[in-house]
Amino acid sequence: MSVKAYMADLGQRARQASSTMAAATTETKNNALAAIAEQLDNTREQLRQANGEDLESGRANGLEPALLDRLELTPARIDDMIEGLRQVAALPDPCGEVTDLRYRPSGIQVGKMRVPLGVVGIIYESRPNVTIDAASLCLKSGNATILRGGSEAINSNRAIAGCIARGLEAVNLPADAVQVVETTDRAAVGELITLAEYVDVIVPRGGKGLIERIARDARVSVIKHLDGICHVYIDDAADLAKAHAIALNAKTHRYGVCNAMETLLVAASVAAECLPPLVQAYGDKGVELRGCSATRELLPQVAEATAADWSTEYLAPVLAIRVVADLEAAIAHINRYGSRHTDAIVTEDYSRARRFLAEVDSSSVMVNASTRFADGFEYGLGAEIGISTDKIHARGPVGLEGLTSQKWIVFGDGHIRQ
Amino acid sequence: MSVKAYMADLGQRARQASSTMAAATTETKNNALAAIAEQLDNTREQLRQANGEDLESGRANGLEPALLDRLELTPARIDDMIEGLRQVAALPDPCGEVTDLRYRPSGIQVGKMRVPLGVVGIIYESRPNVTIDAASLCLKSGNATILRGGSEAINSNRAIAGCIARGLEAVNLPADAVQVVETTDRAAVGELITLAEYVDVIVPRGGKGLIERIARDARVSVIKHLDGICHVYIDDAADLAKAHAIALNAKTHRYGVCNAMETLLVAASVAAECLPPLVQAYGDKGVELRGCSATRELLPQVAEATAADWSTEYLAPVLAIRVVADLEAAIAHINRYGSRHTDAIVTEDYSRARRFLAEVDSSSVMVNASTRFADGFEYGLGAEIGISTDKIHARGPVGLEGLTSQKWIVFGDGHIRQ
Repeated sequence: MSVKAYMADLGQRARQASSTMAAATTETKNNALAAIAEQLDNTREQLRQANGEDLESGRANGLEPALLDRLELTPARIDDMIEGLRQVAALPDPCGEVTDLRYRPSGIQVGKMRVPLGVVGIIYESRPNVTIDAASLCLKSGNATILRGGSEAINSNRAIAGCIARGLEAVNLPADAVQVVETTDRAAVGELITLAEYVDVIVPRGGKGLIERIARDARVSVIKHLDGICHVYIDDAADLAKAHAIALNAKTHRYGVCNAMETLLVAASVAAECLPPLVQAYGDKGVELRGCSATRELLPQVAEATAADWSTEYLAPVLAIRVVADLEAAIAHINRYGSRHTDAIVTEDYSRARRFLAEVDSSSVMVNASTRFADGFEYGLGAEIGISTDKIHARGPVGLEGLTSQKWIVFGDGHIRQ
Repeated sequence: MSVKAYMADLGQRARQASSTMAAATTETKNNALAAIAEQLDNTREQLRQANGEDLESGRANGLEPALLDRLELTPARIDDMIEGLRQVAALPDPCGEVTDLRYRPSGIQVGKMRVPLGVVGIIYESRPNVTIDAASLCLKSGNATILRGGSEAINSNRAIAGCIARGLEAVNLPADAVQVVETTDRAAVGELITLAEYVDVIVPRGGKGLIERIARDARVSVIKHLDGICHVYIDDAADLAKAHAIALNAKTHRYGVCNAMETLLVAASVAAECLPPLVQAYGDKGVELRGCSATRELLPQVAEATAADWSTEYLAPVLAIRVVADLEAAIAHINRYGSRHTDAIVTEDYSRARRFLAEVDSSSVMVNASTRFADGFEYGLGAEIGISTDKIHARGPVGLEGLTSQKWIVFGDGHIRQ
């Protein structure tokens, strides 16, 4: 079978399974999640073996140590997958929720009912645990899923797919509700993202290159995450103790994450007071600093920032620092160089906090809190399938609700349009 | 200037204007709508003249009478545009609405704030009044807009664009917030739908051919409306008086609209009782009927339906009729042949009404009401920019809210992630 025919077949099966999934009760879906967890727990030895094959070919193919590490299914990671399934089972079911049900002057009653999107395609790279994370969120939200993991994890993913299929069948749900693409042919991705008839949305998880390619070529809607160039702006009216704590936390709590601060903006009038102790603290943590000329006048030990620094996502212990005239300049900098991900102001001034909230065009805008809070768990979504930097459909952390849509429902008693 | 450069320039101006629009107060936006209405009212003579030029070239180019009719700006239609602006001004402003603001265990307070999408591109055909309808909704929702109307209405659209620009300037909003594409070069559409850097969403309004082409080639998200193949299912447990009224209204209230019923489904056990009077009533209205074999056994005067009839949007006094075994067969028919637009069940049975609501995968699902109610005004949206048959972002009638997005907002008191 050609890759084209194979993927179309997968799509058709997923579409078929999606109606059963949409009609499945909360109890059935939760039982499926528990059954999958049980399957994982009972097949640890096979999982380890399959994963061993992947690790072996990875080593033979000269995969980098960091990638080999991501690929490995340690007993602790299997425990995490099982725990993740239980957590998703414990989340409220978003499907069927009815809101805004109101009588209209015509006498009809109109509201909205939350429903699954249908078929979700997930494209990801080496971590095999994403197979379980993504499958569980799609399952709980009543969707059918097609999962395309990295070719270097193919044996692990097949073994996990077997657990999912047996778990689904144990509760009489169709195994086609979660399908793992079995071919490592790269053309499969190109097919998946153009199956507009069978796939409702694509969620890519991986490096920026992968996501840009998918967004460019997709004929299906994509919920995507590009850069995380996050800012903290220390305003004239900031409480400098809060500013110090937030600016330090936003940069140094974790470096390789999308909600870490990459550029610190400081109002000129407080720079001389707040920057020196901050620069000292960053130095203690080993953070490399790159500053604008005003920063370097105060602190000559800081390296010189180039224009490129303002639009770089370091994902590393590197920080750009810029002194700005005022709130207006800070907002202009963020809206120009930022990636519309997460930005925070530190201020005690009511009107400036309001202006920052209204005018910064990012998926998360914060007052007096660290950008590191931009996260599905911290926001109370329970779990996240990703963080969207788009404005259409889902913005910011995407949880179960982002995998659903709302349809209109109308109740009448024989009402006709006059 | 090339079309490419011209459109990129428009896009850049729109993007720039969009931040001013996003920050504009409700009062300023309402004043702009009033000022535009005043401009229209004061320039009736110029509008009539510009429109006369379009009508003249339309006639010279052999435009069909129906299209010439749509193109004409009669005094009554100018009144309607003015009244439309006032109605949009009276609608609540969706921007800045904060919902779900809750404290999290970490101590931060997390909620969502409704914000404009940014730049909306509207592509439409001959009716010049769409220029005002679309511009007013985008303006009220805080977006900048690029409007690309039909080339046959170019003089009318330019004249209307002048009114809009003067109205915006009268309240100190940037004229670039609403731009009308001045070139009739068809390449402009291709450019507009691929300006991903400057345009956030495209709303095409027109025939299915236009919309399919745009959806295929766009690199920007599209809120689109394809078919309206709507169904009414008369269940075994229907109140037959309600069924008669609804089935008649759904088909005959208006024919050329997307929410008119195109196929009537009738449960076998009530077909003999309810079909004959309905067929009589349709006959009185001059509706051409095409039935399945079971329908024709009961009523031999009904023509034979072919398979193609089940998936045809007639937009005309034509109706397909099919007798189905039961609720399950009706749902299967609708999910297979329908267009996920609007479908209704007539029943007094509680459980079947619930099943129909849950399992019919359409943007509007109704119980005991005519499909003709699927409309932004009837649903209380105040106005609609279109009806989406997609599931992503906006589904069904799209009003001001569909032109907005939600960003996350976080309030802390110096909170950092532990």
